[in-house]
This record gives sequence, structure tokens and C-alpha cells, in this order.
Amino acid sequence: MTICVVGHSNPDTDSVTAAIGLAALLNAQGQDAKACMQSTADALNPESKMVLDRFGLAVPEEITDAAGKTVALVDFSDKAQAPANISDADVVTIVDHHKIGDVTTNNPILFRNEPVGCTGTVLNKMFKDAGIDIPKDVAGGMLAAILSDTVNFKSPTCTDDDKAAVAELKKIAGVEDTEELFMAMLKAKSSVDGVPAKDLLFRDYKDFDMKGSKVGVGQLELATLDQVAAIREDLLAAMKEIKADGRHSVLLMLTDVVKEGTDLVVVSDDPALIEKAFDGKLAGTSMWIDGMMSRKKQTVPNLQKAFGC
Amino acid sequence: MTICVVGHSNPDTDSVTAAIGLAALLNAQGQDAKACMQSTADALNPESKMVLDRFGLAVPEEITDAAGKTVALVDFSDKAQAPANISDADVVTIVDHHKIGDVTTNNPILFRNEPVGCTGTVLNKMFKDAGIDIPKDVAGGMLAAILSDTVNFKSPTCTDDDKAAVAELKKIAGVEDTEELFMAMLKAKSSVDGVPAKDLLFRDYKDFDMKGSKVGVGQLELATLDQVAAIREDLLAAMKEIKADGRHSVLLMLTDVVKEGTDLVVVSDDPALIEKAFDGKLAGTSMWIDGMMSRKKQTVPNLQKAFGC
Repeated sequence: MTICVVGHSNPDTDSVTAAIGLAALLNAQGQDAKACMQSTADALNPESKMVLDRFGLAVPEEITDAAGKTVALVDFSDKAQAPANISDADVVTIVDHHKIGDVTTNNPILFRNEPVGCTGTVLNKMFKDAGIDIPKDVAGGMLAAILSDTVNFKSPTCTDDDKAAVAELKKIAGVEDTEELFMAMLKAKSSVDGVPAKDLLFRDYKDFDMKGSKVGVGQLELATLDQVAAIREDLLAAMKEIKADGRHSVLLMLTDVVKEGTDLVVVSDDPALIEKAFDGKLAGTSMWIDGMMSRKKQTVPNLQKAFGC
Repeated sequence: MTICVVGHSNPDTDSVTAAIGLAALLNAQGQDAKACMQSTADALNPESKMVLDRFGLAVPEEITDAAGKTVALVDFSDKAQAPANISDADVVTIVDHHKIGDVTTNNPILFRNEPVGCTGTVLNKMFKDAGIDIPKDVAGGMLAAILSDTVNFKSPTCTDDDKAAVAELKKIAGVEDTEELFMAMLKAKSSVDGVPAKDLLFRDYKDFDMKGSKVGVGQLELATLDQVAAIREDLLAAMKEIKADGRHSVLLMLTDVVKEGTDLVVVSDDPALIEKAFDGKLAGTSMWIDGMMSRKKQTVPNLQKAFGC
């Protein structure tokens, strides 16, 4: 049966290009695999669209239900971020760089998770270990994913392994100027013009189970906070709307990539708990947290500590 | 804080030597780590004792409670097989070759699980990836573990990777004749003389959660079933005793390594379900299943299917 390689829900560039990368690796190893994603082509975030377009990569097909399918997971290992009915799928491989989630299997499988900045960095090692050359277009996608996930090496999640992978992948992909590539991605990603607030909130959004409480965390990476100044009320309304759907809190990280910090917008049953989590003080509905760039390495661990996970 | 590297409960040779191996790798990488095991030195199984003795490896210290400790897990990723209070420990690394268990983390860590016959095979790759030479004594332990876990390459879990690792490790360990090493281990392992039945049952025993039913599966690898002919009633009594402690079923695999099959002894609330799981028919309290060698790859998956996991 064809292995559907799929990243997390609300896919980002790593999730999409890692699915393409692992499918290419599996194919080169003689396995029948195809890249999938939990999004329609239209709903894909603008950065990922731009990356697929620039490197001439085919848009992965949509998968919504994993029941009865053979799947490989990239960039996540949490059931909450998987296609529907993941427990009825045969999970045959996992490649990730996050905390270890709650997906379990009945059989031994390859699960390679490394504490690096991007799944693309792990995949680059796997191609090398297998002695298989990375196709030029696939290398371009993986390169873009590392620049995106590490915020051009500025994120605290970035490791020397990520930098080494970029140095190797840029040669294979024929990219001379990674600064230019990053700024083009940032420009595509941070464009909010004409996009409905709810779509912006879901552009890079994940739900987490915090000891029984459902907490949603979205992130918008911006070149400047001015970009969202005119739509703050609309964003807040969208957050309140999805909070009403059984969530304890909804947070939106408005991350200023240049200033290297986040204006954290909070809608919560218990704002004091959120303030405690980040040792900050809300001014109205948000608080500036200097140095906060990573949902995975900073926001979520702090929330987990505050919720007593 | 010192990283306690520990294998599963009721440790086998892989669990013990992999803890030694990963601790050695972490130490070589500048980390403070020590090998531990979930057993006293006295209670260690005779095969593992013999292996540590032959290669001059220090007996790992006992760990029973992981609360507040920094731990690395080898040869398992199931909470049920961990030291007490594993949820209150900081799990920093997992190296394994089994199905993916239910240990989760709050932070990204290295989790390297490969569908190969032995943790030692994965560790051998990790030493090579890191460019670190394996100490001679440590290589001996890892070599013995691979021979043990793959039943000298006969187990269906054995892969080409395991064979390649043995070829490399025997050179490093200075072992010329792996057949001799395997037979010496088998002799040590299968010795039942003077050992209480309950100790034999727990020699290589694991509990599994089968959709809410607790099922225990022990395995004794024997050179011939004659070795246990005189103590079958004692083994059955020991199985009944531990079954009474809230278990749905207790199975004991009496595996004939030479004939390559298992006499499966069954004590169960629902013997018909167990018969269905293995497509066999109990003659009294046991049934011979030709070709059954591996608890992990054969017994447990069949049980999971029968229990509807």
C-alpha cells in the first residue's frame, strides 16, 4: 500500500517540504510513497506556496482521514495534530524534531527525532546515511524549511546541525544567497493584506492539551508589528470566537522577527495564569515578551509548567 | 545533573549493555552519564551476568525510582516498563528498537528507534555517526546483546543491519568465534537448575495493556524443552499465582532455540481467545507453535489483534 507521508495540521513549510523529502527518500529506497498534507492547495500558507513555487515542487495532495491508510509522519508525533482516525492507520515511520508526542505503534518502526531546529535537518542526515543524493528541487524545499523554522538561525531552537545542513543544501539546491531567500519568505509569510483575521490566526496555529485544558497557540511572524496595527480588533474577535469552542485560552504570538520578541495576545479564562507562565503583565489584551521567538521551545514549555503538566 | 541511562524492567542483556553503551557514548561527548539498571546485581539474569563477567564490564547500579532524576531510556519507550515515577523524571534521550510506547516529553529530545533486532545495533550506528570509537569492553557487551536479541540471527526480528553490526563489533571486541559466544550465553541463560519457578517466570517477563486487560508474557529460551520437563507444574503454579494479581492472562513462551518454535503455556480467563490469537489448539495447558521465536514481533502483535487493540 502506498505510504502517505504527512506533516501536522495547519501545515507550515517544514511540514510540507519534509513530506516531499521523506517521500523522495522512501521512493529512492524502493518504497511506494507519496507526499501529502493536511490542507488544500488553496489554503496553504503563503510562505509555503511561495517556496513550492520557487523550487518547482508539486503541491502535495490533501489527506484528511488516515483510517485504513499506511502513513509516515513528519514534523509531529502528537495525535492531536494528525489527520482524523490516526489510531486506525498503520504508522510506519516518524521523523520529527519536537517533543515526543502520544502516537504509539503496535510494531517496531523507524522513529527519528532530534533536538534540532527543523525536520529538514534530520532528513538531510537520513539521505546521507542512506547514501542517496537529494534531488535539487527537494533540497531547495528542505533548505527553505530550515531557514523558516530557525528564523534565519535566530531562533533558540537553531543548532549547529541546522547551520551545517543549510551549508550543504544550498549547494545542492543552487541557492547562492540564503539571506535573499529568507527575506522573500518573510515577505510572503508576513503579508496580511486582505487576509481575513481568522485565516491569519490559523496560519500557524496548534491546539495543545494542558492537563485537561485545551489551549490554542497561533503565531504570526512579522517584519514589524505595524503590519497588524489596523486589524488587532479583528484578530481579537477571531480569537474570542474560537475560544468559545471549548478552549481554556487562545494565545496569538505576534512575533517581530527583526526586534526578536513577541507581542503575546491573550484571551483566557485565567489571564493571571498566563501572566504567571511568562512572568509578564498584560497591558490590555497583550504583553511584549522580549526574546520570545519559538512557540515550541519557549511558549509551550512555559505554559506546561504553569498548568502543572 | 548526572544522566541515569536505564533499560526496561526485568532487564535482559540488551537492556543492560545498551545502558552501558549509551552512557559511554554520552561520556565521550562530554556529558555526565552513568549506566543503571532496574535490578540488583544479584537478581540479574544469568546470561547478562555471564556477559558482564566475560567482557569485564562493571555491573550498572540499581535504579528503582526516577522521580526528579534526569534519565535516558534504552530498549523501551513504555511507561509500564520504566522505573517508578517516570512521569516526574526529565527524559533526555531514548534509544530503542521496539514499538513506539507512551513515554512523552515536554521538550524536543533525541529519540532514535529503528526496526532492527537490537538496541546495540542502533548504538553502533550512533557511535559511528558521532565519530567516537567504541571501547573494547563496551563493544563486547553490545555484540553479545545482538546475538542474544536476534537468537544468533535466527529471530525474525534480525535484519541485515544487525549482521553488519556484529561483523564490526566482533573486531573491536576481539571476539573471533561468535558461535562459541552465543552457545555460552545460551547455556548460561537456559540453565534452570535449582532456580525457583517464579524466578524463571520473571527471568524475561513483561506486562502489557491489552485494551484494558493486563496480560503478562514471559519467555524462557531453552536448548531443549527437556530442561523444564520436571518443573512444568511449578511453573504453572507460579503463573496462576501472578495471574490472580489482576491479570487477564499469563503466557509463558518456552522457546526451543534449536527446533525454532515455542511451547506456549497459557493461564487465562479466556483460553479460546488465546487459541484464536495464535490459530492453535491447547493440549492441556500449552500449545506448540512452530516458528514462534519473538515475543515482540510475533506474540504481542497477535495478542493485540485478538484483543482488538
